[in-house]
Amino acid sequence: MEQDRRQVEAITSRDIDFAQWYTDVCKKAELIDYTSTKGMFVLRPYGYAIWENIQNILDKEFKKTGHTNVSMPLLIPESLLQKEKEHVSGFAPECAWVTMGGSERLEERLCIRPTSETLFCDHWSRVVHSWRDLPMLYNQWCSVLRWERTSRPFLRHREFLWQEGHTIHATPEEAISETEMILECYASFCEDVLAMPVIRGRKTDKEKFAGAEATYTIECMMHDHKALQGGTSHYFGNGFPKAFDITFTDKNNRLTTPYETSWGLSTRIIGGIIMTHGDDNGLVLPPRIAPVQVVVIPVAMHKEGVLDAAQSLKKRLLDAGVRVKLDDSDNSPGWKFAENEMKGVPLRAEIGPKDIEAGRCIVARRDTGEKISVSLAELETTIVKLLDEVHDNMYAMALKNREDNTFDIKSPAEAKAIAEGKGGFLRSKWCGSVECEMAMKEQAGVSSRCMPLVQSGTEGVCPVCGKPCKTDIYWGVAY
Amino acid sequence: MEQDRRQVEAITSRDIDFAQWYTDVCKKAELIDYTSTKGMFVLRPYGYAIWENIQNILDKEFKKTGHTNVSMPLLIPESLLQKEKEHVSGFAPECAWVTMGGSERLEERLCIRPTSETLFCDHWSRVVHSWRDLPMLYNQWCSVLRWERTSRPFLRHREFLWQEGHTIHATPEEAISETEMILECYASFCEDVLAMPVIRGRKTDKEKFAGAEATYTIECMMHDHKALQGGTSHYFGNGFPKAFDITFTDKNNRLTTPYETSWGLSTRIIGGIIMTHGDDNGLVLPPRIAPVQVVVIPVAMHKEGVLDAAQSLKKRLLDAGVRVKLDDSDNSPGWKFAENEMKGVPLRAEIGPKDIEAGRCIVARRDTGEKISVSLAELETTIVKLLDEVHDNMYAMALKNREDNTFDIKSPAEAKAIAEGKGGFLRSKWCGSVECEMAMKEQAGVSSRCMPLVQSGTEGVCPVCGKPCKTDIYWGVAY
Repeated sequence: MEQDRRQVEAITSRDIDFAQWYTDVCKKAELIDYTSTKGMFVLRPYGYAIWENIQNILDKEFKKTGHTNVSMPLLIPESLLQKEKEHVSGFAPECAWVTMGGSERLEERLCIRPTSETLFCDHWSRVVHSWRDLPMLYNQWCSVLRWERTSRPFLRHREFLWQEGHTIHATPEEAISETEMILECYASFCEDVLAMPVIRGRKTDKEKFAGAEATYTIECMMHDHKALQGGTSHYFGNGFPKAFDITFTDKNNRLTTPYETSWGLSTRIIGGIIMTHGDDNGLVLPPRIAPVQVVVIPVAMHKEGVLDAAQSLKKRLLDAGVRVKLDDSDNSPGWKFAENEMKGVPLRAEIGPKDIEAGRCIVARRDTGEKISVSLAELETTIVKLLDEVHDNMYAMALKNREDNTFDIKSPAEAKAIAEGKGGFLRSKWCGSVECEMAMKEQAGVSSRCMPLVQSGTEGVCPVCGKPCKTDIYWGVAY
Repeated sequence: MEQDRRQVEAITSRDIDFAQWYTDVCKKAELIDYTSTKGMFVLRPYGYAIWENIQNILDKEFKKTGHTNVSMPLLIPESLLQKEKEHVSGFAPECAWVTMGGSERLEERLCIRPTSETLFCDHWSRVVHSWRDLPMLYNQWCSVLRWERTSRPFLRHREFLWQEGHTIHATPEEAISETEMILECYASFCEDVLAMPVIRGRKTDKEKFAGAEATYTIECMMHDHKALQGGTSHYFGNGFPKAFDITFTDKNNRLTTPYETSWGLSTRIIGGIIMTHGDDNGLVLPPRIAPVQVVVIPVAMHKEGVLDAAQSLKKRLLDAGVRVKLDDSDNSPGWKFAENEMKGVPLRAEIGPKDIEAGRCIVARRDTGEKISVSLAELETTIVKLLDEVHDNMYAMALKNREDNTFDIKSPAEAKAIAEGKGGFLRSKWCGSVECEMAMKEQAGVSSRCMPLVQSGTEGVCPVCGKPCKTDIYWGVAY
């Protein structure tokens, strides 16, 4: 007999080597493959299906709030990239440059977009004329390139998939309100769909996006207590429009400069899902974006009626709008259990001769391992309810992890001790000076994560300089 | 008062200058914008929405037939591109090359994918092991680059959006059947969704894809009697798998080389839609992919009850699954009529005080200009029926154009006279020699379009060499 190499092998334990565990899961759950192009990955069908589900849900949200999709060029002429000075200095060092077309050397080199602000502004400079044209609320699903030195699946690719929203408005108020609205859209997406609790906040000037006036962020805590930025939303003021000479005639017939935003969420969030919810048996997927929500596994498949019963289970769940897969391959049930655990399928429904007789199936939860006997008479309602329960429990576990690992700190030394120990989010006051922020980095090895949007309003002192101040801030080690 | 520049200006007539008419439509219907990146375009919201509708329909078809989406890298190392000799010689002359990453010169230059056969093969060489792994039926929605010297909206971009399907199979029969199945999928999509009649056929060896054993094509006739290739499906045999060392263990435990296909349809088809159906008032969109199927225009909008009635019309159509837009802007009805004609909206529903009183609305068809009084009591069913009628009529008109302009030719001289006159599809027998094919190009200025899949089986003679032969073939001038 042939040797079937598709075995479900054990993976490294999270506690032994979290980084290795992460890479194991990415490969063995068949999310990604390495490629011959350094720093770039294949998103395999299962990995890409997660991204498609994210796309479908976010795209609907964006459209509901009046945004439309467009497609901008992949390449940016160097002169265009250089129009906004802070922006180019932030991105030029990590651009990939096209210098040859066919066999000819190009007169001006072109960079592969690291982000598309300059392209949107270039377009707007041609099509924005009147207040009637505003706002323009655009989004683009595409890939961008950043020439990183190291790479890790989902977390750091030279090329990654994302959506980038770009909007242009008549007033700063409208633009700021867009920035905040989108941050809330990202935050509730993470919480309600991905079961990932987030802290909504603003980045410090040091950490904000190149060229932005303000960057809003959602910060998530991973299982290893490190931080992951889930999505960002930027308010640009009118700096880009001025640099690109975008003007419009307002209602009073005055020539005016508009205001801009941009915002993005990338495949990085899939890394976040893995590191928030995964366990030593592999991936654990939040039900609302799981490509397969329920896998049906016939037990003693060769026995009369079993396959029929399994097929009927599948059909009923499909009709109820559940993403369901029937595994009727000739692998052993044990192999199937392990494979679907590795792939993080939220619910497994087993059905065998005894179950058929008893009018039930046995449902195993991926999140808790619990086994539940489900009456076939109440199949659809029970499964739909269970999927919600799995979501709620995953959210609660992730929130508990964050709460158990968030610490108030009074000094860089205290911060350092925690950061070098079990890690976590470190909460303190901050005087607002970049010197104290740099000191935290140098003395404690942590960067500022965000100033939460919900501020306590209490008085305190900066842990570095000791000055009295009010601003709450989170520090941590980030992916 | 401000000067509102968004006027609906007249466009060039098709008969006066078809190329200029085409460019006018692309710009004035707000499908595209030129950019600072030579040869690349912005797909504006209205243009991109057409592509999204195409994506949604095709993606469902692909998934229904077992295909899944993946994401491959944007960049291909030069050594990887060179693994299959015919393929690289076909594509290398039109590649864009990345030679710098950040500030460093790369050791090996990378080309931006012109197509991704080499990347899929590279992946498969790592993940295909057993007959159990086959077939792998993959698709990717992305953009590709071809360093063209000239550009035209949709028809020739240096970067264009497309889908590229790539599949790998245990046997040649399976792979060939996949190639044919996809061609039929493209053909019925063009006919049933885009109202574009197509000729299903095979390319000659001279015209086939670089590296393919056989290329299948659908050929469409444009309003100016030129041909446009709507989509292609390639059978590769096992040439690529051999070059990339892809093998699998078959059911008899023998190491075997698999067989491959690839197939693609691009935003070029939007150029085809424009040139098949458009008229001197602008775009005419096939209802099944029109972003807006019905525009509701209130007449005497300030009068009591009119806006309410228009809103109710919109809501009822939305609920019936129709893509509908209410134009309640303060532009004049005349301006709105012209704008929606330019944008090719299939149906316009006008409602004013008299119509409300009479319990009707007036529906104007974009394809025929006909105005129909529609009883509000039967609104939904009538509109849905009308949309189908518009589709059928657009298809019939396009088919008539093709039939009226397809000619049987007996000699290159006869072909030349037609090609240089009104143009058209030229049908003849062909002996199968590349010399005669080249002679047609040189003497008549036409290229072979395809050998139709449905062959007459009759005997005849090659128009060039006069040898007796059976193969039916189409010639023409192509976009």
